[in-house]
Amino acid sequence: MATFEITEFQQRLRNTKQKMIDQGIEVLLVTDPANMNYLSGYDGWSFYVHQLLIVLLDEEQPFWIGRSQDGNGAKLTTWLDENHIIPYPEDYVQSTVKHPMDFVCNILKEIGQESKAVGVELDNYYFTGKCFLQLQAGLPQASIKDATNIVNFVRIIKSEQEITYMKRAARIVENAMQKGIDSIQEGIRECDVVANIYHAQISGTDQFGGDYPSIVPLLPSGEKTSTPHLTWTDEPYKAGDPVILELAGCYRRYHAPLARTVFIGEPDPKVKYLAEVVIEGLNATLDAIKPGITCEDVENVWRKTIEKSGFTKDSRIGYSMGLNYPPDWGEHTASLRQGDKTILQPNMTFHLIPGIWLEQYGVELSEPFRVTENGCETFANFPRKLFIKSESKIY
Amino acid sequence: MATFEITEFQQRLRNTKQKMIDQGIEVLLVTDPANMNYLSGYDGWSFYVHQLLIVLLDEEQPFWIGRSQDGNGAKLTTWLDENHIIPYPEDYVQSTVKHPMDFVCNILKEIGQESKAVGVELDNYYFTGKCFLQLQAGLPQASIKDATNIVNFVRIIKSEQEITYMKRAARIVENAMQKGIDSIQEGIRECDVVANIYHAQISGTDQFGGDYPSIVPLLPSGEKTSTPHLTWTDEPYKAGDPVILELAGCYRRYHAPLARTVFIGEPDPKVKYLAEVVIEGLNATLDAIKPGITCEDVENVWRKTIEKSGFTKDSRIGYSMGLNYPPDWGEHTASLRQGDKTILQPNMTFHLIPGIWLEQYGVELSEPFRVTENGCETFANFPRKLFIKSESKIY
Repeated sequence: MATFEITEFQQRLRNTKQKMIDQGIEVLLVTDPANMNYLSGYDGWSFYVHQLLIVLLDEEQPFWIGRSQDGNGAKLTTWLDENHIIPYPEDYVQSTVKHPMDFVCNILKEIGQESKAVGVELDNYYFTGKCFLQLQAGLPQASIKDATNIVNFVRIIKSEQEITYMKRAARIVENAMQKGIDSIQEGIRECDVVANIYHAQISGTDQFGGDYPSIVPLLPSGEKTSTPHLTWTDEPYKAGDPVILELAGCYRRYHAPLARTVFIGEPDPKVKYLAEVVIEGLNATLDAIKPGITCEDVENVWRKTIEKSGFTKDSRIGYSMGLNYPPDWGEHTASLRQGDKTILQPNMTFHLIPGIWLEQYGVELSEPFRVTENGCETFANFPRKLFIKSESKIY
Repeated sequence: MATFEITEFQQRLRNTKQKMIDQGIEVLLVTDPANMNYLSGYDGWSFYVHQLLIVLLDEEQPFWIGRSQDGNGAKLTTWLDENHIIPYPEDYVQSTVKHPMDFVCNILKEIGQESKAVGVELDNYYFTGKCFLQLQAGLPQASIKDATNIVNFVRIIKSEQEITYMKRAARIVENAMQKGIDSIQEGIRECDVVANIYHAQISGTDQFGGDYPSIVPLLPSGEKTSTPHLTWTDEPYKAGDPVILELAGCYRRYHAPLARTVFIGEPDPKVKYLAEVVIEGLNATLDAIKPGITCEDVENVWRKTIEKSGFTKDSRIGYSMGLNYPPDWGEHTASLRQGDKTILQPNMTFHLIPGIWLEQYGVELSEPFRVTENGCETFANFPRKLFIKSESKIY
């Protein structure tokens, strides 16, 4: 069963249709799995084959189109009537001779939509170049419009229920982060630490279990902390290694990501200093966040705070997030960076992650937060410091 | 460091260039993360932003193009010289005003490739409709060709080193499957079973650790076994539930997937019968596999074996697999189904998964295997039966 009231799905759909009208779109093809979930409740690991929702302005429910095998999954997880679930035959799957978008074109013709303004999520992972070309060839009378992120921008302000889910995700990430930091020790293999983290992420709490986060735990160590997106190895940790942990708790596809940095043994003064700079910048930035200011205002606070240290950071310091599927937990809407003039509003939710990666090492500390009526509230409650693990372990 | 000898990467590149020549392609843009890894060794969870390799016929090494933050990751994981690693500035990331493909077009111009036959992985998740349009607009003199799966088809026959990695993945999946089946019990939450599975997948064995599989454990229970791609909940298992477990071991991005079905309590005779049919079909199919026959020949053996049962299956019964990244561990090349005339050759590797999903329940048992000189060899050693969990647990 879907995880929200039908009325909430209906409101989401009304908000989406308003944006469609604003942008002159009559038919919206929703291929982003998070957007599909947001509008229909659909949840399954089937996004490795082509699937989508069709949203029509005058149709109360979207149509779900996916692989035949997944039709029962759509019946079990969405709020849609059975006649809005349209499976395509299995021989369309990863075929070199048939393409699922041809099936979609035929459905659009059957329901009289072949000459409409059709919006597509042009820069979404799950709308390939081939999807675009097949659609263009299959619906020569349609005008195809770029509707990337239309639904994502509807998602940017969270409902109370969504906030509740993100708070549960935060309880999970606190547990998982603690388990990870407790497990890191000279001589322990990286994979054994990550195994403990995963266990905590999925087991969750006594009250509720965890869902899979959209990104695996990122745990670079040593020189690999000079870059943020390496995962782990089966090598044992060494004294003198910094270790970055970036990982999320996830509850019903809603995320609370968190990053911390650990040093094994007596910390290198350079790493310690970099951590102090990041923490000071993070704290100052959180203090300044409130409704009415823009994303670039937030980034400015960070920039000015760390200026005196001599360090610079040219990447964004955060991004809107919440509901998502692999490969990203970010929402692809607002980013905390120069030039982003999105105005903060209550119940926007971000991951503030001002990491700094130098040539030989890096430091990350992050906080997921929601904008409140007069400031912001961090989801997780976890010490903001460089964690130090003694070398005393006997093995 | 890359996980294969440089000579192996060079051989892969030569094989790729031969296919480029055969298909009249002068410049190949490789966006599939598995293909990027296969040719360069690159490994990081950065495929949620645009990145690619450029392969030129007369250039010994590919060029890696990715996000600035990930440049050090490319230096640390690939065999490429630094001058073949070209990071793009951070303000291209998930921007509404700049697109990384514009950066790629400029690089192609700089290296004199703007009027060439440019192959793209048109139906790959990580080559979006927007990528296609930006490339077309940015290189008006180029001829853009569909090169989907060119590298995938090079990957279809595995080297000895790759087979070694898949055998390690199989040791991991045996452990993880055993842990899952041991943990399933009436009254135990689904998420707690999956937490144990994850721990075994990542911790691996005493000799080597596990990598993250490209698909999360799929553990539908009860009526949800009528569809294969649901994940798990935090509800406790109930007596009378069938549970399907489909999960993989993964070692350095190489997979060994395995599926089994469990029944909690005295099994429903219908489920028991369906399991017998699937097992008989699976065994007969494995017995028939050998080099020289086609993928559709393999499927025919299955089809004829189960014919007398009255059950039918219209989806493929397996697919080539090995190296991959989310969202799929399948290779998108050969499928074991009608119409696929790919001829089996030694060291092709498949996941044979003849699951049957009915309206109320389903059964899956699967085997990963490699084609040998005169037959086939399954990677995993795990009993092929319907597992039955007694209701005796006290809780």
